[in-house]
Amino acid sequence: MSKQQNILIIGAGLCGSLLALRMAQHGFNITLVEKRPDLRKFSLDAGRSINLALSDRGLRGLRLAGVEEAAQELLIPMTGRMIHEKSGNTFLSPYSGREGEFINSVSRPGLNKLLLNEAEKMPNVKIIFNHACTEVDFDKPAATFEDFNSREKSTYSADVIFGTDGAGSVVRANMIHDKEFLLNISQQWLGHGYKELEIPATENGGYRTYKNALHIWPRGEDMLIALPNLNGSFTVTLFLPYKNSDYCFENLTTPEMVQEYFQKEFPDVLELIPSLTEEFFHNPIGAMGTVKCDPWHRFGKTLLMGDAAHAMVPFYGQGMNASFEDVAVFDEILVQYKDDLDKGNITWERIFDEYEKIRKKDADAIGELAVDNFDEMKAHTGMELFQKKRKLETAFEAEFPHEYYSKYSLVTFKEDLSYSEAKRQGRAQDKAILSLLHDNKLDEIMSLKEKLQAVKRQTQLILNESETADYLKF
Amino acid sequence: MSKQQNILIIGAGLCGSLLALRMAQHGFNITLVEKRPDLRKFSLDAGRSINLALSDRGLRGLRLAGVEEAAQELLIPMTGRMIHEKSGNTFLSPYSGREGEFINSVSRPGLNKLLLNEAEKMPNVKIIFNHACTEVDFDKPAATFEDFNSREKSTYSADVIFGTDGAGSVVRANMIHDKEFLLNISQQWLGHGYKELEIPATENGGYRTYKNALHIWPRGEDMLIALPNLNGSFTVTLFLPYKNSDYCFENLTTPEMVQEYFQKEFPDVLELIPSLTEEFFHNPIGAMGTVKCDPWHRFGKTLLMGDAAHAMVPFYGQGMNASFEDVAVFDEILVQYKDDLDKGNITWERIFDEYEKIRKKDADAIGELAVDNFDEMKAHTGMELFQKKRKLETAFEAEFPHEYYSKYSLVTFKEDLSYSEAKRQGRAQDKAILSLLHDNKLDEIMSLKEKLQAVKRQTQLILNESETADYLKF
Repeated sequence: MSKQQNILIIGAGLCGSLLALRMAQHGFNITLVEKRPDLRKFSLDAGRSINLALSDRGLRGLRLAGVEEAAQELLIPMTGRMIHEKSGNTFLSPYSGREGEFINSVSRPGLNKLLLNEAEKMPNVKIIFNHACTEVDFDKPAATFEDFNSREKSTYSADVIFGTDGAGSVVRANMIHDKEFLLNISQQWLGHGYKELEIPATENGGYRTYKNALHIWPRGEDMLIALPNLNGSFTVTLFLPYKNSDYCFENLTTPEMVQEYFQKEFPDVLELIPSLTEEFFHNPIGAMGTVKCDPWHRFGKTLLMGDAAHAMVPFYGQGMNASFEDVAVFDEILVQYKDDLDKGNITWERIFDEYEKIRKKDADAIGELAVDNFDEMKAHTGMELFQKKRKLETAFEAEFPHEYYSKYSLVTFKEDLSYSEAKRQGRAQDKAILSLLHDNKLDEIMSLKEKLQAVKRQTQLILNESETADYLKF
Repeated sequence: MSKQQNILIIGAGLCGSLLALRMAQHGFNITLVEKRPDLRKFSLDAGRSINLALSDRGLRGLRLAGVEEAAQELLIPMTGRMIHEKSGNTFLSPYSGREGEFINSVSRPGLNKLLLNEAEKMPNVKIIFNHACTEVDFDKPAATFEDFNSREKSTYSADVIFGTDGAGSVVRANMIHDKEFLLNISQQWLGHGYKELEIPATENGGYRTYKNALHIWPRGEDMLIALPNLNGSFTVTLFLPYKNSDYCFENLTTPEMVQEYFQKEFPDVLELIPSLTEEFFHNPIGAMGTVKCDPWHRFGKTLLMGDAAHAMVPFYGQGMNASFEDVAVFDEILVQYKDDLDKGNITWERIFDEYEKIRKKDADAIGELAVDNFDEMKAHTGMELFQKKRKLETAFEAEFPHEYYSKYSLVTFKEDLSYSEAKRQGRAQDKAILSLLHDNKLDEIMSLKEKLQAVKRQTQLILNESETADYLKF
């Protein structure tokens, strides 16, 4: 057997930490380098609790590395969307009609800490914080880092490098500027920004609104959402256009205007967020974008993974899940080739190629689905036709749990189905069900079974049509 | 009237020179800054004559600035594609069935010199060469340049800046790195590179092959093309995959392999290019990509135009034409608002917004059509079905000149039709005619008029279908 290979992982966020842990379990020597301080010792966000939605695909990655159980303690199940109408009326729209299908609110730093702790337990993992990557030498490969405190530079070389340094990846930026390497890149920003606010816990640590849901205040062009935290608080996120709208970040410039806006659009929230205007003017506006690029690896020596390879907007709650699934998909291929790799019979390039061939189309698909879902959340959830659709789908899933999966379920709960397949089937199904409802072709006298059959027929028709269209493209 | 406004134009290539000339005609004070030396005094390309195809949309821009007539002397009409089969057989496939519709081979430096000369005649134009833009201050706006000789930096401010610095635009790069400005950007490279070669003139200055055509040797995945120059030579361009092909840039590493490749694929070319292998190993490999970005202007003070805003692959021969059309479209809007601009009633931002609203979809369309046309040129032109289609289209255009325009004609000769409309109609028409031919639905006993009606009906059907599909997208 050949010498133990050295792997350098740049970025110790959720993806990088899980990857480090899993690759260490395979016996590689891991150096994991992170720009920020160790979040187990220093909280950068001064108590702000950023939460994410963890679901099946993400859990698969955690399970693979043996940390699913430990993670469970951090999770708060959310069984559906709690829709808040302007009138103050609320109703729960379940994520699935099947038992046991829900998503989970989880604290990003909480989960990251867990993964860092687990990685650090491995004797073959070395974690270095406060070192920002400044340059990558793709030929060697090696990367240079600057110590945040001393400003001194140091260079680490390795057999291969993984770039898991997030949406603003420095590793990817180095690929873009590498003239010998033609990186295809697309970076598309939304015209909406976001701002985080907080619904604090009650005085005795309880929840001020229903705990086990993802709350949505859909208002067409803008929306508010809220996810529960373990300490009784909710992290609230306002999504609002930057400009050219009655209310937008450009014109919400005074406490009075912010109050007026919430009074008009989210009156029931005002009492839930006591320090609304302070937070509004203190917290930064975040930008949201979709990044696609390829090839993901630079001549077989440096591979991008997670947000660095495929950043997406947050509206499907799949960013972290997709990153963890990256690790699982990569692992499946690695396991297949590990012996040959150890014997020197095949190269990392071959493994990277294989991974990209399988994974790229799925990363593209979830990136596109996430943009779709913004419209669904901010506008459609408030529309009658859409609500009819969701009710029907929930009934299908409850009555025929093995025969029907909504697009949301295909994406979120069917971890054995690829994102690209979920997109293809789910979009056709959505189109089918919406057009049938719109044309009043799902008569009340039809049985639920007959309705399901009508939806399935129409879906198949749409799928066939789109295949013919592809064929005719010449 | 307000003071005369100062306009800084960065990049004195084809687009920047024409823009400078036209804006000077409107009375603005123009500073035109170019990174390279003055090509009227120094030839950078050591005698290589790079040529382009000038057609109606480009001529419109030249006409607007009063230089169409002067440009005519530089043009060589090309009436069609001369297809060279492997056997050595050739046939001419006309660009149009109508009289007077052809494209023109023109020397890039020749046309650039003409435009620089015309711009320099204006008292309100100052041209500075050898100054590379290093930084743009979008707020002022101002730009900093480095003198190629002295390395000294100087900064020029202006009322507005135009970035016409080409596909690798430094102005655009500055926009990308501006954190306050979310520039959407997509950069997609082809898996093919190109290499320029030359068919020299005969000893007495004549042409070694037919002068008035664009020559194509279509070979499926690779191709050779040749455009005539005024001096009797042809500029030849080889388009070849970088790798993963029987013959590709990666494996054509010896003179023997290059000879073998040409002997096998382009035997009739061997005798036309006496110094083939010398040129092959001397000339660089060029990369080809499509760049899309938006917004094109940074808060109303700096506007991208030409390749800087929308670089495209060369296969529709529309890169320069689109850039000249940019100037014409911009001019139309400027003329409309010029009085209000002079009086200070409206801002440049309003004009830039209007321009982008009208022009962006057309730039996107020609970028996509150019990629399509690569397949058409390298593969389809050599296929029987496609040749049947072209013959039928040529007959339509000859017999019914006002009733039928092929996609190529819509894009190339109908300067009153936008690129996006040409794309929409042209693609549907191509699909219609190909499916009718493929299904043998254009019977020989049908009259040409009947065939035209069948194609029109089928085209309309396809257009209606795609509208329905758009409608159902929800």
